[in-house]
Amino acid sequence: KHLPYTFNRVSAEESIKMSREFYDKMNERRTIRFFSPDPVPREVIENIIKVAGTAPSGAHTEPWTFVAVCDPEVKQQIRAVVEMEEETNYAKRMGNQWVKDLKFLRTDCVKEYLTMAPWLLLVFKQTYGMLPDGRKRNHYYHEISTAIAGGILLCAIQTAGLATLTSTPLNCGPAIRGILQRPPNEKLLLLMPVGYPAPDATVPDLTRKPLEELMVTV
Amino acid sequence: KHLPYTFNRVSAEESIKMSREFYDKMNERRTIRFFSPDPVPREVIENIIKVAGTAPSGAHTEPWTFVAVCDPEVKQQIRAVVEMEEETNYAKRMGNQWVKDLKFLRTDCVKEYLTMAPWLLLVFKQTYGMLPDGRKRNHYYHEISTAIAGGILLCAIQTAGLATLTSTPLNCGPAIRGILQRPPNEKLLLLMPVGYPAPDATVPDLTRKPLEELMVTV
Ligand SMILES: Cc1cc2nc3c(=O)[nH]c(=O)nc-3n(C[C@H](O)[C@H](O)[C@H](O)COP(=O)(O)O)c2cc1C
Ligand SMILES: Cc1cc2nc3c(=O)[nH]c(=O)nc-3n(C[C@H](O)[C@H](O)[C@H](O)COP(=O)(O)O)c2cc1C
Repeated sequence: KHLPYTFNRVSAEESIKMSREFYDKMNERRTIRFFSPDPVPREVIENIIKVAGTAPSGAHTEPWTFVAVCDPEVKQQIRAVVEMEEETNYAKRMGNQWVKDLKFLRTDCVKEYLTMAPWLLLVFKQTYGMLPDGRKRNHYYHEISTAIAGGILLCAIQTAGLATLTSTPLNCGPAIRGILQRPPNEKLLLLMPVGYPAPDATVPDLTRKPLEELMVTV
Repeated sequence: KHLPYTFNRVSAEESIKMSREFYDKMNERRTIRFFSPDPVPREVIENIIKVAGTAPSGAHTEPWTFVAVCDPEVKQQIRAVVEMEEETNYAKRMGNQWVKDLKFLRTDCVKEYLTMAPWLLLVFKQTYGMLPDGRKRNHYYHEISTAIAGGILLCAIQTAGLATLTSTPLNCGPAIRGILQRPPNEKLLLLMPVGYPAPDATVPDLTRKPLEELMVTV
């Protein structure tokens, strides 16, 4: 069944203005690696996850689960897994070139932010679903749909005045899935601490590609 | 080199309010399959692409190119490719179950929106980059980074008061890459018509998962 779609059109001027303002807001976003322990209200976390849940998905399968961790012990367990795996990642799995390419970020195997930030958001993609009769349901394009939802989540975090770090912890998925007791159809896609930057937080001095390098008009 | 990060913290009340408002705005988004031919100012298209370009990316490789097509002939060529491939997709490649799972959307091989919408945005992931000395540069996590940028693009489109359809046209990448003369390191990830819904546009009658099914708190 299809329904009429009610749409309130804004003027071209208003559209230009809103697109500029949203750019200014989003362009302030930086990946933060030093967090304040200050609490963030649960309602904000719920709202930003609700925003992520408005994402489009292949065949409307909504193939995602968002786990929000505030329990200090669970955060500590996740940190322990990530730090252990990152040691092997830096020493062996990533290889020289990758480690070199990350130098300017000054990241390393110590992940204090995983216990410092008030919340950890873990974005799981559901590789398949379950029908009421127990059969598996195909989740077409589950990874790309969930990554798109992750991009929408980032906008919600920024709009709510919070900071995050986007990460895809190499090789940590199965252990973290175990800690969080997620079912076998769920695979970890993103791990994002959410909170406020530490007062003395620093960020790598980097610039973004200008429009000419981003966009081609035909 | 790292620099201090200046952050203006908002109150918890303000944060709750902004996160609610953004949810209301994003929850209005629907995938639109019937477009009006009314023009959209080029500046809005530029601004929304600039927003997408603020996305995070693995090792800050910014592995994306956004092609904005407004030339009617090129739109027609893209439509011809997609319609031809979709015939084979529906008849053979997707299989019975997939076609059945799409029935409620009432999509088919006719893609009038690809010539009706004033703009087509094509999001390419760059599978690798080029260093000044001609060597290849690794683009870590290029697909997920570009999909995240796609999610941010969707927020920018919605915030600017425009509508889109998110699609990943199966098997159309190489031909469309040819039409747009993109280099071999660029692969098509998303094809998104952008504009205003037709006055009589309809949308499938669907609902989104409630918070309890989206979110797990630990
Ligand atoms: C990765 C991806 C691929 C999609 N491909 C198509 C497509 O080829 N054709 C189409 O009509 N819709 C496509 N969609 C849109 C979904 O059908 C739509 O998001 C879903 O039905 C939910 O509807 P909503 O976006 O209005 O909430 C795609 C969405 C995603 C995320
Ligand atoms: C898929 C993906 C994986 C990332 N993984 C890490 C990570 O493991 N550790 C980290 O410190 N930053 C990680 N980042 C953040 C990037 O380093 C960051 O986005 C990039 O340097 C640009 O900086 P900005 O986000 O401040 O613009 C990741 C980003 C993406 C998109």
